[in-house]
Amino acid sequence: MSKKIVIVGGSAAGMAAAGRSKRLSPDLDIHILETSKFISYNICSLPYYVSGEIPSQQSLIKHTPESLKQKYGIHAHTGCRALKILPWKRQLLYKDTDNRTQSSLDYDKLVLATGYKPHLPHLGKKVKGLFTVSRLEDGIGLVEALEASSTVVVVGAGYVGLMIAEALKKRGLSVTLLEQGDQVYPLVDVDMAQLIQTELEYNGIFIRLKHKVTNLETIGGKLKAFRVGRHYFDCDLGLVDIGVVPNIQLADESGIGLGISGGIAVNSQGKTNSPDIFAAGNCAETIHLVTGEPIVSTLATTAAKQGRVVGENLAGRRSEFDGTLETSIEKVFNLGVSRTGLTLHQALKHGYKATATKISTRDNSAPSPVSDRIHVKLVYTMSSGRLLGGQIIGPGDAAKRIDTLSVALTAGLNVRQLSQLDLAYAPPFSTLLDPIQIAANVALRKLRDD
Amino acid sequence: MSKKIVIVGGSAAGMAAAGRSKRLSPDLDIHILETSKFISYNICSLPYYVSGEIPSQQSLIKHTPESLKQKYGIHAHTGCRALKILPWKRQLLYKDTDNRTQSSLDYDKLVLATGYKPHLPHLGKKVKGLFTVSRLEDGIGLVEALEASSTVVVVGAGYVGLMIAEALKKRGLSVTLLEQGDQVYPLVDVDMAQLIQTELEYNGIFIRLKHKVTNLETIGGKLKAFRVGRHYFDCDLGLVDIGVVPNIQLADESGIGLGISGGIAVNSQGKTNSPDIFAAGNCAETIHLVTGEPIVSTLATTAAKQGRVVGENLAGRRSEFDGTLETSIEKVFNLGVSRTGLTLHQALKHGYKATATKISTRDNSAPSPVSDRIHVKLVYTMSSGRLLGGQIIGPGDAAKRIDTLSVALTAGLNVRQLSQLDLAYAPPFSTLLDPIQIAANVALRKLRDD
Repeated sequence: MSKKIVIVGGSAAGMAAAGRSKRLSPDLDIHILETSKFISYNICSLPYYVSGEIPSQQSLIKHTPESLKQKYGIHAHTGCRALKILPWKRQLLYKDTDNRTQSSLDYDKLVLATGYKPHLPHLGKKVKGLFTVSRLEDGIGLVEALEASSTVVVVGAGYVGLMIAEALKKRGLSVTLLEQGDQVYPLVDVDMAQLIQTELEYNGIFIRLKHKVTNLETIGGKLKAFRVGRHYFDCDLGLVDIGVVPNIQLADESGIGLGISGGIAVNSQGKTNSPDIFAAGNCAETIHLVTGEPIVSTLATTAAKQGRVVGENLAGRRSEFDGTLETSIEKVFNLGVSRTGLTLHQALKHGYKATATKISTRDNSAPSPVSDRIHVKLVYTMSSGRLLGGQIIGPGDAAKRIDTLSVALTAGLNVRQLSQLDLAYAPPFSTLLDPIQIAANVALRKLRDD
Repeated sequence: MSKKIVIVGGSAAGMAAAGRSKRLSPDLDIHILETSKFISYNICSLPYYVSGEIPSQQSLIKHTPESLKQKYGIHAHTGCRALKILPWKRQLLYKDTDNRTQSSLDYDKLVLATGYKPHLPHLGKKVKGLFTVSRLEDGIGLVEALEASSTVVVVGAGYVGLMIAEALKKRGLSVTLLEQGDQVYPLVDVDMAQLIQTELEYNGIFIRLKHKVTNLETIGGKLKAFRVGRHYFDCDLGLVDIGVVPNIQLADESGIGLGISGGIAVNSQGKTNSPDIFAAGNCAETIHLVTGEPIVSTLATTAAKQGRVVGENLAGRRSEFDGTLETSIEKVFNLGVSRTGLTLHQALKHGYKATATKISTRDNSAPSPVSDRIHVKLVYTMSSGRLLGGQIIGPGDAAKRIDTLSVALTAGLNVRQLSQLDLAYAPPFSTLLDPIQIAANVALRKLRDD
């Protein structure tokens, strides 16, 4: 008899585990449970649906339960919420969210790919006009609410907040961004964040830092304003993005071990402490490749790779996931913004004797037809110059250069080795010394005290 | 008394050596000899001057002898050809090419940065209308000759040939490209070269492969046609780019040792076998970081880094150059074309048990506003999957991803490690799995025989 695999969660990790295991072992009987009505959609493109650049929600959806069944023989159960795991019976209890009936699925192997959920310590009320964005339904609801709206307040300047602020600005709304911290986009250091803030403000986003929302004001159950101390920020719509937490309730209530990061503890193969139960994606721990410490990634890239590794193990292979550098990239109006490894702030917090070098240079060789500025920040140890992280802001695809630093981090290179790299040059693409190497040379001078 | 440094050659390597040593040791008395009337110009941007995209030759020139003197205290002697080194007297004899007088310069340290010169085994006649492009004067002469010209034949489909063919097409000329080999752009494998050929032909370049020019036809001392066997290719202008050789005559005649690659033999500090004489750039050997064998690079990037290292050693530091991967990138009409390390052809020729994987995928995530195809080829060993080289062709900046493979080669990564890299993703920049990782996963499947 064919083995039965049950996967809880149909996003990046769950879909990767399903697809990879089925490809290697076509006999597997694979079932995916997904709370949402949709499965296998591109959540990272949701801002482009909100902005109207992607006209229909259909083009965000890669597969339907029908196409998964037909093309891959994978069974998807959408609109189903997992309730409880009974490990000793190898059984999962779940509820159909439409007809509210409870059912069960037996499994040989179970995969938890439950992702993350918005963290809403004091703004979690169900209020009309108040949105979070972590599922396709959220984006659809937001677009439906646009017609009657002209002002929006976005609470939190993390990457979802920035993406949605830009999308709604493109829809013609008046957009106010409230951030409780002292910078936008805390994934980069404050000096780099100032460049992002300038770009946002230049494009008409009204930003207030150090503004912690203390309360919501409603009229007739509908959002009316956010309150920050004695100030009120009126709006027709509110979007809250003040952080996410790994969605571990199901695991925790079923006695599956959590790690110190707060995510489900797994080994490099994705195995939990419960026999026959795997976890992958933004609910599961992995290792940060610079610090060596456990971390829960919030990235779809990490989730997809973790899911793929679990899929290979489900198919009887021994496959391992090495870890994450939390490499990410975003487009903020006309800027690309990227980062990998540790920011200087993070490095110092982790106890590294670290320093940083930031350079700003033209993106392309001087007499080239196309040219603009690129900003590169390198974070490295003061003793050996070992790279700890990097941040890049620039026009076009310039920020995708972060991959060069990501590989350098993986290989444990120092700034001298960075300066010796053989990076590609031609006038339309770069300066003779790539901006990364210009930064590495400045860092070398700092280390040697030239 | 301050030490006197004489540098022969004022291109990438020579200028880097001069600038870096002067910065570290401002007391150095630095003299640069340059045969050309121009110094410190951007030869890599010359095609954009030929095409008219850069309107004036001035914008190619970074420094004049006057500005070098004033800003940096560096003495540049342009229009001066070095004739002979007398190492036992630490003296260089040279000729002023204008007034033909012979002079001499004493030195404490000498740097040979004489670059390369066109290799013209049978097409080296001085004929009006016949050009090579290795110096700024060549480009100026070519532009001057354009007015009276409507057809050009470019002999040789290497990177200079392709750049000039495109530039002259943009000037409205009818362009024929003759190549004796069976592909354009031999820096990549033939399958990748076919994509480049299609782009060239789509943009109106007439291409003939396996066409070896046997002779020139002239009328009244002016080029009339190239002859290939019994066929004649008429033209007003001819541009020959059938290879370059390191310019080592001065070194050779002065008893300085050459390496098996044909370039001047140097250690990692840039020292020749003659005391007090260094060499750097496209006349000097370095190490290929994949094969470990000596090689003479033709790249400005390698030259600049070699020159910088020599400059540091001139200033009394111990600095070393690690070697080259021959990473390069070119823009061919709307395609970016890049490569690093070994092609499959080169790897097999070097005796590696190598294989390759080529994938073609969309450059960006499906529902993104911008999208197009990218082609990635990975070359790796059949035993361990160790990366040996890579080639990328794609729109926009996609080909600059080659840097990711260059760092991976430097670090000795295998295709499994490539597939685990934490590369940056957002819909405007990439697919969820970067095309490089899609290729790495296909390579892994090939190695495991999935």
